[in-house]
Amino acid sequence: MENFADRLIRAVRDKGNPCVMGLDPRIDQMPDFITAEAERRHGGFEAALRGCIADYHRRLIDIAAELLPAVKLQSAFYEQYGTPGWQALKDTVCYARERGLIVIVDAKRNDIASTAEAYASALLGRTGVFGREMAVLDADAATVSPYLGGDSLEPFVAACKKFSKGIFVVLKTSNKGSGDLQDLKLASGEEIYVAVARLVERYAAELAGAEGYSSVGVVVGATYPEQGQRLRRLLPQCIFLVPAYGAQGATGRDAAVCFNEDGLGAVVSASRSLTYGFRDRSISPEEFERMTRERIAEMIADVTGAIARR
Amino acid sequence: MENFADRLIRAVRDKGNPCVMGLDPRIDQMPDFITAEAERRHGGFEAALRGCIADYHRRLIDIAAELLPAVKLQSAFYEQYGTPGWQALKDTVCYARERGLIVIVDAKRNDIASTAEAYASALLGRTGVFGREMAVLDADAATVSPYLGGDSLEPFVAACKKFSKGIFVVLKTSNKGSGDLQDLKLASGEEIYVAVARLVERYAAELAGAEGYSSVGVVVGATYPEQGQRLRRLLPQCIFLVPAYGAQGATGRDAAVCFNEDGLGAVVSASRSLTYGFRDRSISPEEFERMTRERIAEMIADVTGAIARR
Repeated sequence: MENFADRLIRAVRDKGNPCVMGLDPRIDQMPDFITAEAERRHGGFEAALRGCIADYHRRLIDIAAELLPAVKLQSAFYEQYGTPGWQALKDTVCYARERGLIVIVDAKRNDIASTAEAYASALLGRTGVFGREMAVLDADAATVSPYLGGDSLEPFVAACKKFSKGIFVVLKTSNKGSGDLQDLKLASGEEIYVAVARLVERYAAELAGAEGYSSVGVVVGATYPEQGQRLRRLLPQCIFLVPAYGAQGATGRDAAVCFNEDGLGAVVSASRSLTYGFRDRSISPEEFERMTRERIAEMIADVTGAIARR
Repeated sequence: MENFADRLIRAVRDKGNPCVMGLDPRIDQMPDFITAEAERRHGGFEAALRGCIADYHRRLIDIAAELLPAVKLQSAFYEQYGTPGWQALKDTVCYARERGLIVIVDAKRNDIASTAEAYASALLGRTGVFGREMAVLDADAATVSPYLGGDSLEPFVAACKKFSKGIFVVLKTSNKGSGDLQDLKLASGEEIYVAVARLVERYAAELAGAEGYSSVGVVVGATYPEQGQRLRRLLPQCIFLVPAYGAQGATGRDAAVCFNEDGLGAVVSASRSLTYGFRDRSISPEEFERMTRERIAEMIADVTGAIARR
């Protein structure tokens, strides 16, 4: 298969924008036409959970598949619904891939040695069992947390090589408390997030694609444009996954600093503002579709406009 | 319910040792009497996966319940088997709690705001959906990674308060690469792991139990006794979860530095050396049980001996 970075860059070019829809199942905020009578329709509580999540995301993915290069699934929101949530995570990955979208699972996993290998198998690779190779989630890419050091990233890098997948290493997150550790100054004069960037650089070089970008990318919250700008210079070949657009307050202008001169090198993700942006849960399916398309169009215009204007 | 730290300390006193059995499903390394004909016995591939993991762990838990205060389930090894693995994780948590063991899920989760809340619900709390409150894994405690800062820990701390649960924040891991970030010197002269310890201290004070220990603990790998000793002085009220005993090379003497003068304040975890220590997968059920008990007895003698000799 084609290198992950090349696939993602091609998808961004094909769709003409670098916007990503975040899929976070929050059943109690879904429209009534999805949840009303779900237990009756899907035959019981657990089936209803899985059904609601899969149904809702199928609608969103159908819209995203026309307009956007990728979706980002936040694992936590699926896991909070237990086994049915886990099944719906798999359902959603499968359906999004079927519809031709690049699928990023935002799981921020981190561990060492054979444990990190197991996470890499779960998210990106395959698990050997009973003499066969089992695909588990089989996403295109996953997010990974760096606190455990370089050797904790290596099993993920190995899976990327073997299965043509990608990772995004968490560098600088969008929350206020991200400064508690990430911004601390080291004795060397650099901040911790810069030290992590240097660690990532090593692995990024190993997974460079034909388009000049690596399948080892980074997560940089759009709420810290200064840091984003600095990291952009430090890691020219990394693709930035930029969350926090929309509901978390960042704008296209904030995100634009994460792009290279070529207009590429980042994808910007929005979740709630695209998928739970309606005021009233009694919204009709038609109105919901119209509104979702409108929100996506607004985001595309804002982000691509801001990149062009830099 | 009783504070988590108090429950754990009581279990350690009752069993007379602070040893924890790590449960990491690696199906292809399980004894033949568990895996042979599993597909036939359990009716198909997926049921066989779940069945093997649940069967094997039920045997191990039956032994652990007599001898040990707690078990630690490594989430990655369950997740690598997809939905059946996830179901088996839930089965194993339930069975271990039923048998009176304290259950720690080693998941090293980390995220921000409502996403961290969702992880806390999945591991420790409950998820509100369709007008009810759903227990998900409902473990006694979970491990959490700190890179995202203080506000990323708060939703877990809140769940601990509300549901009488515990967390162990990853401070210093047992791998060689743990030095890449954790040991870097800050401009303040302290290492990063010490800065994380100071962050944890804040939250630990909020969850102190009657026995003088907090339900906010830390993970400190037994392979770094010097750092363990230093952290012990810095965080007197935190319970240390000390992995890497056994297969990863640490001994009772290495782990002993993580205990307080009162002989308490830490639990030491071993996985492969207790649960996959046999040479030959054709081992009989009787021999397997004898050997597992022997390995546990050796570990208990080594660890309690080393604590007493300090």
